[in-house]
Amino acid sequence: MTGSSGTDERPSRADFPIHRVMSTRWADNDMFGHLNNAVYFELFDTAINGWLAEQTGTAPLDQHARGVVAEISCRFLTEVGFPATVDVGIAVARIGTKSVTYALALFVGSSGVGSDPAPAALARWVHVYVDPATRATVPIPPAIRSALQSAL
Amino acid sequence: MTGSSGTDERPSRADFPIHRVMSTRWADNDMFGHLNNAVYFELFDTAINGWLAEQTGTAPLDQHARGVVAEISCRFLTEVGFPATVDVGIAVARIGTKSVTYALALFVGSSGVGSDPAPAALARWVHVYVDPATRATVPIPPAIRSALQSAL
Amino acid sequence: MTGSSGTDERPSRADFPIHRVMSTRWADNDMFGHLNNAVYFELFDTAINGWLAEQTGTAPLDQHARGVVAEISCRFLTEVGFPATVDVGIAVARIGTKSVTYALALFVGSSGVGSDPAPAALARWVHVYVDPATRATVPIPPAIRSALQSAL
Amino acid sequence: MTGSSGTDERPSRADFPIHRVMSTRWADNDMFGHLNNAVYFELFDTAINGWLAEQTGTAPLDQHARGVVAEISCRFLTEVGFPATVDVGIAVARIGTKSVTYALALFVGSSGVGSDPAPAALARWVHVYVDPATRATVPIPPAIRSALQSAL
Repeated sequence: MTGSSGTDERPSRADFPIHRVMSTRWADNDMFGHLNNAVYFELFDTAINGWLAEQTGTAPLDQHARGVVAEISCRFLTEVGFPATVDVGIAVARIGTKSVTYALALFVGSSGVGSDPAPAALARWVHVYVDPATRATVPIPPAIRSALQSAL
Repeated sequence: MTGSSGTDERPSRADFPIHRVMSTRWADNDMFGHLNNAVYFELFDTAINGWLAEQTGTAPLDQHARGVVAEISCRFLTEVGFPATVDVGIAVARIGTKSVTYALALFVGSSGVGSDPAPAALARWVHVYVDPATRATVPIPPAIRSALQSAL
Repeated sequence: MTGSSGTDERPSRADFPIHRVMSTRWADNDMFGHLNNAVYFELFDTAINGWLAEQTGTAPLDQHARGVVAEISCRFLTEVGFPATVDVGIAVARIGTKSVTYALALFVGSSGVGSDPAPAALARWVHVYVDPATRATVPIPPAIRSALQSAL
Repeated sequence: MTGSSGTDERPSRADFPIHRVMSTRWADNDMFGHLNNAVYFELFDTAINGWLAEQTGTAPLDQHARGVVAEISCRFLTEVGFPATVDVGIAVARIGTKSVTYALALFVGSSGVGSDPAPAALARWVHVYVDPATRATVPIPPAIRSALQSAL
């Protein structure tokens, strides 16, 4: 992710090389009338796994190694609610041997790079790669590593 | 809904005057690798409430009466799974004084009327209108009735 | 399921040989302040799959055949909401060669057989057994058939 | 939260004054066969809101101020899956004027304080109190503050 200089400066759409647009659902809104916090993680997960599947041409279950979530953090900045369309921005913040850290953002609307409104939420997301059978950590598969490098 | 003559004949996209396209999510797939049955109802609910809100210009919570689900049935015909985009077809099957019955279908892909593949699921959905405070049944609000009549 | 004589007579807790108690969640309630309809199906699914796994000693994924949902219907009789504890009643209505039909009910509270309040929802649920690889329909596995016969 | 001395030392059940036991669901497991990460947040939310409602005798919607999530972080330490029963441990880490920070843990099983297995997940959760109408931040309501102080 580039373009963030100060600690409190919030990244914009242009800071995220990948954008994934998706719809929200009636039941995503909780009793407070806004997207329940858990829904953000469903959307982030969908963005990452959908993008990786397209990039590698392989569904997550068919990969030799699985990216399981080791750590997540998220700041909720402004309220979002159904029926909004949302755009998840993905940037690869760090590629390790066996893990990858993503910087993620959720924007309201689907206008893509250029319109640049402020993000509604910002997150960090760490995937660790494990062997599907043994659950031991393993190196990131080469096809996934290539995809990740394209979004640094 | 028009165009269905035989009992076993399955309706096609053209039988549904309203179409709502939406995305699926990674976590919609259950351990069997396909959309969990509960997800279909989230999608149907989203289609109906989203369409009514657009048609009436009023969010469901701001209506004088609320459409609560009294009865649902669904036949699951073919498997659907993330990352499919889906298209929910809505037809109004019957408008009563205080309730409405929808015929719904879920199609894979977003190609709209004309491409006509078979539905992946078919459902009936009954909304009964109730007073938000007393929960007593009440007549369908006029703005909603107008919208419904446009989709008979 | 036994004990129901008239068409409009609602079954009670005693009509269901199996009872599964489970908790509701904050996010189960939608903007109308009650359990979203999709949540009922998550609860029914959990009741059936959890009970079958215990009875057969085998997790659903490890069975030779998978019970996939072919048809569901549900009538919602009274509103239920978080933080209620709920009790799903299971009765086996019909065992076929390759499919089984369940009669299900959702009761509020966990008091079990004896207290007998009215059900909040009543459902029919059809599982068809399929081969995990080919998706062709197959006979119900013997261990599952035994479990089902105990709940007729 | 008390009893944690080293930075890498993981807290145990006894470090959390509040414990809330809840059930998991079939559809909580994603295609990897374990609880999807978003489900942990549904469980944490349920624990906090359910506990506060019991302590204050007031449902979250009926409070003069609403606790909305400002920030969440979670480390996933060991896999959890349906049909596990889980126990969410709650400790109040910091009470501010308008916000509260919780330390949360998810344990598998319901054995409570004393059995002391390692947590499957550890989280930090910040609620900020806002006015339901204006969404401006407001002081924590006195009844909630009292409850929080009992779990420091």
